[in-house]
Amino acid sequence: MGIAITGIGSYIPEGVAPNKTFENHHFLNEDGSEFQHNNEVIIEKFKAITGISERRYIKDKITTSDIAFYAAEKAIEDAKLDRETLDYIIVAHNYGDVKYGSQQSDTVPSIASRVKHMLKIKNPYCVGYDVLFGCPGWVEGMIQANAFIKSGIAKRCLVIGAEALSRVVDQHDRDSMIYSDGAGATIVENTSKDSGILSHKSATFAYDEAHFIYFGESNNQEITDARRYIKMYGRKIYNFALSNVPEAMKNCLDESGATINDLKKVFIHQANEKMDEAIIKRFYKLYNKEAPEHVMPMSINKLGNSSVATVPTLYDMVVKKQLDNHRVNKGDIIMFASVGAGMNINAITYRV
Amino acid sequence: MGIAITGIGSYIPEGVAPNKTFENHHFLNEDGSEFQHNNEVIIEKFKAITGISERRYIKDKITTSDIAFYAAEKAIEDAKLDRETLDYIIVAHNYGDVKYGSQQSDTVPSIASRVKHMLKIKNPYCVGYDVLFGCPGWVEGMIQANAFIKSGIAKRCLVIGAEALSRVVDQHDRDSMIYSDGAGATIVENTSKDSGILSHKSATFAYDEAHFIYFGESNNQEITDARRYIKMYGRKIYNFALSNVPEAMKNCLDESGATINDLKKVFIHQANEKMDEAIIKRFYKLYNKEAPEHVMPMSINKLGNSSVATVPTLYDMVVKKQLDNHRVNKGDIIMFASVGAGMNINAITYRV
Repeated sequence: MGIAITGIGSYIPEGVAPNKTFENHHFLNEDGSEFQHNNEVIIEKFKAITGISERRYIKDKITTSDIAFYAAEKAIEDAKLDRETLDYIIVAHNYGDVKYGSQQSDTVPSIASRVKHMLKIKNPYCVGYDVLFGCPGWVEGMIQANAFIKSGIAKRCLVIGAEALSRVVDQHDRDSMIYSDGAGATIVENTSKDSGILSHKSATFAYDEAHFIYFGESNNQEITDARRYIKMYGRKIYNFALSNVPEAMKNCLDESGATINDLKKVFIHQANEKMDEAIIKRFYKLYNKEAPEHVMPMSINKLGNSSVATVPTLYDMVVKKQLDNHRVNKGDIIMFASVGAGMNINAITYRV
Repeated sequence: MGIAITGIGSYIPEGVAPNKTFENHHFLNEDGSEFQHNNEVIIEKFKAITGISERRYIKDKITTSDIAFYAAEKAIEDAKLDRETLDYIIVAHNYGDVKYGSQQSDTVPSIASRVKHMLKIKNPYCVGYDVLFGCPGWVEGMIQANAFIKSGIAKRCLVIGAEALSRVVDQHDRDSMIYSDGAGATIVENTSKDSGILSHKSATFAYDEAHFIYFGESNNQEITDARRYIKMYGRKIYNFALSNVPEAMKNCLDESGATINDLKKVFIHQANEKMDEAIIKRFYKLYNKEAPEHVMPMSINKLGNSSVATVPTLYDMVVKKQLDNHRVNKGDIIMFASVGAGMNINAITYRV
C-alpha cells in the first residue's frame, strides 16, 4: 500500500534562448547604476555561478495554462487511466496566465479549471484548484494530494507545476537570465505497491524572509510606469537556503525511516548550480558524509529555473532516461526538495 | 471528537459605497452599446434583483493581504490561542494584492506568507499557502484544513478568505455594482467536543462552464488598452447555480446523516438575493418541503458580494449576534455553501 506516482509528463518549450540572447540587454544594478563590466563579462560570471547556458521560453500565443495542459495530457497517457476517474486537479503556479505583451495575471477562472476544460473532463467531482507556494508549489501539491488520499476524500490526483516566468522578467535585471518556462505533471494515487511517499516536510519562513523574492519595479529608473517584475535578493536567498534546506531534507529523510546510505537520488529545485552543490554538500555533512557523485541530477544548464515545473520535469527526464546516465530503479529511495518564494522549503522522501 | 471552528473574525471595510455612487457612471452593454434606460432605472432594477443597496471598499493604501491579516488577528484573538501553534495558514483569494491604481496582481510571495509575516509568527512549520477556487475558496480552504487534520499532518489551521474586488471592476459594466471587498478568517482544529464538520462536497464544472466568470476587456470599446476586469455571464450563472447548487447541498446534507428538519441555518455565498432565494427554495423542494423563514441569513443588502470573504463574514456576524435576529446555538446543524468562478460549487454540513 503506497501513495505513489503512477504517471508523469512534462512540457519543455521549444524556444531555446541561449545566453547570447542577452548580449545587447542593458543590465543595471538595482539602484539603476551601470555595471563596471560589459555584458560579455556579466554573462560569463552569471554562467559560472548559476550553471545556466540556455533557458526555454514558450511561444507568444500560449500561456501557463496551455503548457500545464500539455504536461497533464502526457501524465494521463503515461498512467494509462480514464481521466474521468481523477478526484483532483491541483495546479501549482505563481503568476497565473500572463498573455504575451500584457502585464496582467489572469487567475479567474483558476488555471486548474482551464486545464480541466482543455482536458475535456466532464465529471464535476474532479475538483480543480490552484496552489500558490513559490517555486516549491509542485512538491507542496504532492503533499496535499497525499493528505487528500490519506484522509479518504480522494483516490487519484493530477498534480501540475506550470509557470511562464518569461512573462514577468525585467530585461534590465541580470537575474532575468535565470528564469525559464515549463510544466511538469504527475498522477498520484493509492496503489497496492510498496512504492510511494514515505515522509514529507514543509516550512514557511516569513518572519524576516517573506520578501526575499518579490514583485518589484524595473532596475531602469527611467521607466516611470509602475509595472513590476519578479525580483530577488540573491545573496540573502543563498545564505537562507544554505542555512535551512539541508536541515529540512535531513528531517524529512530521518522521518521516513530510510538512511542516508539508502538515498539514491535527490531531485532538487534548480535555481543556481553553485547553491545546489553547496546544499547537497551540507546535507551530507549533517550525516558526516561526502555527497556521492551523480546523486543530484541537474537540468539547470539547459533549462534554467522554471519555478514549480523544475522538479517534476527533472524527475520525468530521469524516469524517461533522457538525462545523461542518471537512472532510477524500482525500489530506489529518492528525495524531492525545493526552496523558493515565501520563503518556502519542502521535501518528500519517496520509494520508486 | 470533531474538527471544528474554535475562533472566527472578519474585517468589513469602513468605506461604504451606496448605490448612488454609480449615478454618474457611464454603463454600457457588453457590445459597447448604450442602455435604453437612464442610470436611475438601471440602479433600481439592479437593486430589485440583487438586493444590494450598498457595498464596502477598502482604503486606497491597503490591499487584500492587509485585510486578510486584520481578520486573522481577530480569529486568533477569538480562539485565544498561541499563534505559534498554528500548523497551516490557508488563504483563499482570486486576484492577489492589487495596489490602488495598478492593474497588476501581486502574488509573490503568497498572500499567506504576507499574512504570516504581519502576524509575526516565527515557527517555520506553520505552513502558509494560497488557494484559488473562485468565490468558494474559503469553504474549500476549510475542506482542505479538514483533510490535513484528518490525515494527521496538522492539528490547527487558520483559514482565511480575503478579496478586494473593487480593484478589478470595470466601471462601464453594470455588474461592477455587485462586487465588494472584505475578509473573514477561522481557526479550525481537532477538538474533544461533539461539534465540527460532518460532511462536505466539492465540484468543478469546467466542461462548458469554465469561462462563465472570466477576466475580460471593458465594455467601453473606446478604451483601447488591453486592461482586463472581472466579468461574468449573469444569466448563464443563474441557470447553472439553480441547476446544480441545490443538489450539491442535498448530497452534502444527506452524507452528514442529519435530516433536512435538523438544519437550522444555511450560510450561502451572497452574489444575488433573488438567486439565493431560488436556490434555497429548490433545495427544500428536493425534500418536498418549503424553505422555513429565517433559515438563510443575508448580508448582501449592505455588503454586496465580497467573494471568498462573504461566507465567513456572514457566519461571524451571526455568531457575534450582529445580524437581525439570526442566532446559532450549540448543537445546531448548519450548512456553508458557495458557488463561483471555475465554476466551482461546495458545501459543508457543520454541527455548531
